[in-house]
Amino acid sequence: MRETTVIRLKDDIQLNDPILLVGLPGVGHVGKLVVDHLIEKLEAEKVFEIYSPHFPPQVMVSEESTVKLVNNEVHICKTDERDLVLLGGDHQSTTTDGHYELGGIYIELAAELGVSKIYTLGGYPTGKLEHTDEVMGAANDTELIEELKELGVTFKPNEPGGGIVGASGLLLGLSKFKDIKAACLMGLTSGYLVDPKSAQSLLAILSKLLNIEVEVSELEERAKDMEKIVANLIEAKQQQQGVLRDTAVEEDLRYIG
Amino acid sequence: MRETTVIRLKDDIQLNDPILLVGLPGVGHVGKLVVDHLIEKLEAEKVFEIYSPHFPPQVMVSEESTVKLVNNEVHICKTDERDLVLLGGDHQSTTTDGHYELGGIYIELAAELGVSKIYTLGGYPTGKLEHTDEVMGAANDTELIEELKELGVTFKPNEPGGGIVGASGLLLGLSKFKDIKAACLMGLTSGYLVDPKSAQSLLAILSKLLNIEVEVSELEERAKDMEKIVANLIEAKQQQQGVLRDTAVEEDLRYIG
Amino acid sequence: MRETTVIRLKDDIQLNDPILLVGLPGVGHVGKLVVDHLIEKLEAEKVFEIYSPHFPPQVMVSEESTVKLVNNEVHICKTDERDLVLLGGDHQSTTTDGHYELGGIYIELAAELGVSKIYTLGGYPTGKLEHTDEVMGAANDTELIEELKELGVTFKPNEPGGGIVGASGLLLGLSKFKDIKAACLMGLTSGYLVDPKSAQSLLAILSKLLNIEVEVSELEERAKDMEKIVANLIEAKQQQQGVLRDTAVEEDLRYIG
Amino acid sequence: MRETTVIRLKDDIQLNDPILLVGLPGVGHVGKLVVDHLIEKLEAEKVFEIYSPHFPPQVMVSEESTVKLVNNEVHICKTDERDLVLLGGDHQSTTTDGHYELGGIYIELAAELGVSKIYTLGGYPTGKLEHTDEVMGAANDTELIEELKELGVTFKPNEPGGGIVGASGLLLGLSKFKDIKAACLMGLTSGYLVDPKSAQSLLAILSKLLNIEVEVSELEERAKDMEKIVANLIEAKQQQQGVLRDTAVEEDLRYIG
Repeated sequence: MRETTVIRLKDDIQLNDPILLVGLPGVGHVGKLVVDHLIEKLEAEKVFEIYSPHFPPQVMVSEESTVKLVNNEVHICKTDERDLVLLGGDHQSTTTDGHYELGGIYIELAAELGVSKIYTLGGYPTGKLEHTDEVMGAANDTELIEELKELGVTFKPNEPGGGIVGASGLLLGLSKFKDIKAACLMGLTSGYLVDPKSAQSLLAILSKLLNIEVEVSELEERAKDMEKIVANLIEAKQQQQGVLRDTAVEEDLRYIG
Repeated sequence: MRETTVIRLKDDIQLNDPILLVGLPGVGHVGKLVVDHLIEKLEAEKVFEIYSPHFPPQVMVSEESTVKLVNNEVHICKTDERDLVLLGGDHQSTTTDGHYELGGIYIELAAELGVSKIYTLGGYPTGKLEHTDEVMGAANDTELIEELKELGVTFKPNEPGGGIVGASGLLLGLSKFKDIKAACLMGLTSGYLVDPKSAQSLLAILSKLLNIEVEVSELEERAKDMEKIVANLIEAKQQQQGVLRDTAVEEDLRYIG
Repeated sequence: MRETTVIRLKDDIQLNDPILLVGLPGVGHVGKLVVDHLIEKLEAEKVFEIYSPHFPPQVMVSEESTVKLVNNEVHICKTDERDLVLLGGDHQSTTTDGHYELGGIYIELAAELGVSKIYTLGGYPTGKLEHTDEVMGAANDTELIEELKELGVTFKPNEPGGGIVGASGLLLGLSKFKDIKAACLMGLTSGYLVDPKSAQSLLAILSKLLNIEVEVSELEERAKDMEKIVANLIEAKQQQQGVLRDTAVEEDLRYIG
Repeated sequence: MRETTVIRLKDDIQLNDPILLVGLPGVGHVGKLVVDHLIEKLEAEKVFEIYSPHFPPQVMVSEESTVKLVNNEVHICKTDERDLVLLGGDHQSTTTDGHYELGGIYIELAAELGVSKIYTLGGYPTGKLEHTDEVMGAANDTELIEELKELGVTFKPNEPGGGIVGASGLLLGLSKFKDIKAACLMGLTSGYLVDPKSAQSLLAILSKLLNIEVEVSELEERAKDMEKIVANLIEAKQQQQGVLRDTAVEEDLRYIG
């Protein structure tokens, strides 16, 4: 597979005033928790699968031991007021130019689907374990900022300091080129674990914003499952500390000549 | 060499119900041990050499001090029930997109050769030195899982946690797109050394699966040879700790401006 | 966005004997301080925005919480003797080939604008906190070296040792191919912090060189603002020490096979 | 500069039974010392300059403070028995695929110049400071091995363990595809410093091999100059330990989302 590959699972997608929500892995997996939860609760239908040489060369293993190549996925679903487009997945790009390439593809898909607003969802790391319901925001449009302020989203000058890195930030920048309003909503979270409470705060804002009602009881369990995957990865990593290195050329191996 | 280069050593390859076995370097070099051993014991014939800018810029040195550019190789051989295609080599890709590119090339080769099933072989790191004969599996097809269970392969829900990384995992994902059934068989191994016992457990399963008989006495010696190469690499690396760095631009050297 | 994208904000740019000043982030942010300061004080007009997959996938957040995709920018302005072209921005390339690609684009822009001389501005790290007004230089033309010596710029044989890395160096090398004279001016700085005093020394040289007068009182405040951004980044980084790693494939995770 | 660029400085190059010697930076800079020394002593003429986005974005600064973009260079010169082609330079590729690309270009240049043999020169790191005159070898041709054995070059089975990494190894592998015989000659060296004694041992072998006489007294001084450049780089690196990081996105900064 030499190129990013978008697999279209449904032709002729007609949407009613769609809004795109983006929840990819990140701090606290907050955004991912929210989007995966909505996909299930709103019974969203998968319409695109995105595979890419910028994702790690990896398959995830299911409960039945079947494998799935890491990917991103786009689902759609109806709500009372409008249709939602939900972008989620296993991984962000492992390369810088991959981020830009995938980001460009996602904004084009959004434009093609007639999306009028994009909300990228993430976690803002506080380093503290005490939970707060606060959701912080940044956006590419001042009107959108005012609307979100009224819903209780916090905006602080120059925050996050150092900017927003990764898809949630990049999509805000790229969507500006297509005149699509976009905001990043970040649930405050310690950053030490997958955080269902932070996801719940984010969902509370989204419920008001999109006029939807979503049951949140399973968020906790979903977070625990995600936590296991992450823990497995950390454990596997620790085991690998003493693992046999293959005949890889380590970066600091100096050349004979 | 700007592109991955596949050198065909034999035209007109006709195979009888071929199955592809993949054993590239990895944890415990278990898969590599098995495939290199089968190539020798079944007197397999080399049909493809694959060179790539994604492999390290490196030559291996033989006993006679002649050199060979690192590569992957495809061999074929006959057994009573069917023909086998054996993919092995010196190294996996050093880059993420290289993995996908090479993986795509290998799946295409498999399809071209009429391969109906793929078994990728590897090691599952336990971190413990005590040997167990257990072979764990994952697959892209539920029927295949049932067949392998009957042969004694273990399948645990969501295991390996964190998925399968590298060629053995990626090929399972990519082969799904070509409707080729594929499974990964992992011999449990400490992860600390090249493990001939784990390779032997894997071979035991393969013998039942493919209805072949292979002598295993030389596995131990083959493992020792591989261990030397790895040890040399580690020693060279330790020596390099104090080695003169060339005029390389180190990553953390900050720009003047 | 698959390619570096240059957005032209003004057609038909006619300049009077223009000189290009380059101040991108680097040691002490000295060059960036100078160019950002000149852009404001000389009321320069933005004419190009450069976005690139070689920049980090990141947006900066303003005081009003609006976002801006990281980029480089080209401004122009008039002074008594000539027009100035000012190249600055948020970031240098994150990749080696990106440096060369962007450098090539910048030299072509310079040639297109009729630029006759290029001064790249940076900081030379001394590791000592005591300030010195010294400005060190290197150039791709011996006449230019003599001119600059007369203005008080210091030139020491083979200094900086190890050469000049990053845009300030690369642009000197690439401009030689287009027969554009270029010099790098480096204000001596500790390297530990954003240094307004070093920027002031550099501005003093530039004032003599270009025959311009620029008020420097706000340099201190500008440096403090930049220092905050950097501090935020360091703090965010420390917080991230314990942050949840996403399902990223860490570099040292060894392959199953 | 988006592509590797070869600048031809002389058309119509006719050579008499040319042999290519390659001495790029590496362990102990042994190969580089030899080739730079031969270029000067044999008054070789520069015929190609190679620039590449795979080299670091860096200029070297001369004694006169003029700058030169890092590059590789090809020189030619006459000796009694044949013409020599000398490939040297500031740096090896910083990327894996860059190594293969540059290697391919160099083998093509060699073939175009009618080169019949290639000797890549380097250092073999022993980790010990005591000097030995030993020169170790590896080659892509058994006849060449025998010839070199007679001249006193040492060949040990499977040595260097772990193979030969970088241009000296890669060129041996790639030249095999063009049926050009090639060997790597490695002067034993501690690996801790630029080693003129090791270069002298290598030159002794080359003198017998190529039937040339070269004065070696300046090797020591040349080594000291190279040592300074390396020391500067290490010192600059240490200073950078506390240097202000620019607004770079550090690898381990986790994404907000």
